[in-house]
Amino acid sequence: MVDALKVLFGVSVVSFLGTTAAVFHYRRSSPYNPKHRNPLHDGYSYQTLNFTQNVDHFGFRNTDKFQQRYLVADQFWNHDNGPIFFYTGNEGDIAWLCNNTGFMWDMAPDFKALLVFAEHRYYGESLPYGSDSFANSSALDYLTAEQALADYAELIRHIKCTMPGAAKSPVIVFGGSYGGMLAAWMRLKYPNLVLGALTSSAPVWQFEGLTPCGGFYSKLQQIYESVSPQCVDNIANSWSTITGQWPGALDVLTKAFRLCKPIESKYDLDPLLDWIVNVLVNLATANYPYPASFLEPLPAYPVKEFCKYLETPLSDKALLEAMGRGMNMYFNYTGQATCLNMSKQATDNFGDRAWYYQTCTELVMPLCSNNTSMFFNMDWDIGYYSEQCKYNIGVAPREDWISLQYWGKEIMSASNIIFSNGLLDPLSQAGVLETLSPSLIAIQIPMAAHHLDLRGQNPADPSDVREAREQEKNILRDWLYG
Amino acid sequence: MVDALKVLFGVSVVSFLGTTAAVFHYRRSSPYNPKHRNPLHDGYSYQTLNFTQNVDHFGFRNTDKFQQRYLVADQFWNHDNGPIFFYTGNEGDIAWLCNNTGFMWDMAPDFKALLVFAEHRYYGESLPYGSDSFANSSALDYLTAEQALADYAELIRHIKCTMPGAAKSPVIVFGGSYGGMLAAWMRLKYPNLVLGALTSSAPVWQFEGLTPCGGFYSKLQQIYESVSPQCVDNIANSWSTITGQWPGALDVLTKAFRLCKPIESKYDLDPLLDWIVNVLVNLATANYPYPASFLEPLPAYPVKEFCKYLETPLSDKALLEAMGRGMNMYFNYTGQATCLNMSKQATDNFGDRAWYYQTCTELVMPLCSNNTSMFFNMDWDIGYYSEQCKYNIGVAPREDWISLQYWGKEIMSASNIIFSNGLLDPLSQAGVLETLSPSLIAIQIPMAAHHLDLRGQNPADPSDVREAREQEKNILRDWLYG
Repeated sequence: MVDALKVLFGVSVVSFLGTTAAVFHYRRSSPYNPKHRNPLHDGYSYQTLNFTQNVDHFGFRNTDKFQQRYLVADQFWNHDNGPIFFYTGNEGDIAWLCNNTGFMWDMAPDFKALLVFAEHRYYGESLPYGSDSFANSSALDYLTAEQALADYAELIRHIKCTMPGAAKSPVIVFGGSYGGMLAAWMRLKYPNLVLGALTSSAPVWQFEGLTPCGGFYSKLQQIYESVSPQCVDNIANSWSTITGQWPGALDVLTKAFRLCKPIESKYDLDPLLDWIVNVLVNLATANYPYPASFLEPLPAYPVKEFCKYLETPLSDKALLEAMGRGMNMYFNYTGQATCLNMSKQATDNFGDRAWYYQTCTELVMPLCSNNTSMFFNMDWDIGYYSEQCKYNIGVAPREDWISLQYWGKEIMSASNIIFSNGLLDPLSQAGVLETLSPSLIAIQIPMAAHHLDLRGQNPADPSDVREAREQEKNILRDWLYG
Repeated sequence: MVDALKVLFGVSVVSFLGTTAAVFHYRRSSPYNPKHRNPLHDGYSYQTLNFTQNVDHFGFRNTDKFQQRYLVADQFWNHDNGPIFFYTGNEGDIAWLCNNTGFMWDMAPDFKALLVFAEHRYYGESLPYGSDSFANSSALDYLTAEQALADYAELIRHIKCTMPGAAKSPVIVFGGSYGGMLAAWMRLKYPNLVLGALTSSAPVWQFEGLTPCGGFYSKLQQIYESVSPQCVDNIANSWSTITGQWPGALDVLTKAFRLCKPIESKYDLDPLLDWIVNVLVNLATANYPYPASFLEPLPAYPVKEFCKYLETPLSDKALLEAMGRGMNMYFNYTGQATCLNMSKQATDNFGDRAWYYQTCTELVMPLCSNNTSMFFNMDWDIGYYSEQCKYNIGVAPREDWISLQYWGKEIMSASNIIFSNGLLDPLSQAGVLETLSPSLIAIQIPMAAHHLDLRGQNPADPSDVREAREQEKNILRDWLYG
């Protein structure tokens, strides 16, 4: 199969350019819908504010400004220098992220904390050049983690200087996934502003030279295996069935996957593989113990739901139809779609474009798989990756920058960072899983998916997530009052 | 006098725009002359190398590269991962700085250290755009401390990755003055690469909100007072004599100061004041116990030499002539000049232009004096300062950036930094003078001028400088082997 795929698609890295993007990218297929909120956490009440930021913190020629959006909730706050819980926004609309970070809301009354959720530049409404922000590499030149961290630093100073009662407020930063990296990096680079960081499911070592590129898909496979080894076998068999080019295959694929736009040639097969892999990633990422609508509206434990269709040995058309039902569960849990749109995995909205730009510049995360796994062979080829980036958006990555700038594994001189990781999350294998010092604390949560601990409490939460949250709260108390 | 000056010159901040630049700016009036080398430290032998750097580390649109010059001496090095002593170049030609940093050379055999001296971008031969590097604010846009630190980080990684036997070499960074800031900031921002920093005479707190603006000139006055209170009185009286506009004053001034270009109107008086103040600063800065040619070829203890002309009460023409003789001692110690060129204080060479740019962007150091001091009144007016920068080079400063980026006084979470300060140095009042933790160690050296401890040993060195160097060596040993 491997060689066939290579012949068919050239180097199959194509697929995981998309996958890399999808790993972190929290795309919503429709505008935010309050009905999809976790009902336990409805009614979060905050003010929406803007702060004027320099477009370029690292040069003086460009004096353009933009409005960074941030949300503030002060109803729990001890206005006499109570702590500030500051969410370092990641690659999405901040209102949506805020509504998916219930842990901060759950803790705020206990800690009498001010809640601040800051939007990441180039996402949501915080667009440096409005709708022109993605027009070309000049407009995008200010989209880096360094600029985003400087935004947060300036905003924290602004809040502390201008909000009565905040001057001496200790600041704890929170973030999940890429936002967790940002939270950790804030503590590394700006400990003058930030007392500590709670970073959840932050794959801070998913970079060149820090973690083997095969770890991600191995871990993903383990997650599916723990649910159903038969499901894994079926998925593994599906790739050659999809790409087999047997008579009538294209029609069967179109129907099995209920595609809006029919598969018309072998050149549509690579995007189809990419689309499926991304869904397998996203199902594990959002494998929460209760129905939630983080990535898409999904049932509880969606990996299990997906595998329900694949629990007996299947082949040929039956296998494709079962896979198709799984995909439909992911995209159409609410039952409103008449067909599935493969192009939804492409970079077709602001968030997608910004994230793709970031993965093509700084956030280069090597991923690969070999033919012994449930996935088809995917080599890691930085040369090809770089060419694709240049071709698509005119910039080439610097794959070794992040480990230089954010210390790689040489973080022992840092302090006050919690690295929590849910082990049901394929990204966990690139997180900090072992405690490094009394104040660089790793928390493993066996039954949690991607930053489940940052979500609001839920009756369906497994006990280890509850325990992790208690441990996190105790550490925060220790930092703040210990 | 104060009001008169204000009327005459508008806001007298004009003067210290220049002074701020002069405080750090090590300008040589002639090409490097080996005869001016301290004879004890002749014959430093090193290789001159270049490293290809990105012009812009913080964006991806501009893919230009430039050659950063660095000097390497490996004759003392234990090639099996012996330590690397890395000098974080500051605002001058690196060969000249290398020859004025004998302490690293003196220590290298003991520590079996590799010596590396890295040139700061936009200085010496490390010009990102060659002779066009200062053409406009676009070419200068990459001249920041952040970019320079990233250069050093990339260079350190390069050396460790490519030099056989360096992979596990611990790196200690060294720097004086602005270079001392850079060394400290390297440890703050890149402790993954740098085990510790010896920062000498680094006024890391000479920034907005961290140190009162009057501290610098008060300290300068103390230095002159400790030599001769009469000298201070004479200097204090000289300002009104210079600006008094009495009959024939302009001619007398021209002759007294041996000026190449005559004073022709009252508008030349402000630059004259500026020029004199800068010399008073530089004399204290280079107030070394032996003849040296760091800023200019100078005798031992040049403040004392200057004040020798001013040790009896003087007034009018006699006062001006005495001041003129002092200025002549500073600029013409070798006796080769037929007249003195006031415009030498202006930004007329690459180093000057680069440094002026830096003081007009990030490195805004508020300085002021009031009329109770030996200086005329100089207000700190950031608005006016900013206007001048805009007018002169088209950029406006962000005076509160450095304290945000480099932690201001909130540095307790850092470690392994020595802050040494010679108390004969007017900049010492903005340095870290008290030990903050077991690994943030302040060393006060009462009888030292500006980073005397970083210079090579000399029989004339006062005992406290020798003791400071011993203490520094012990701390380095502790970091490296403790």
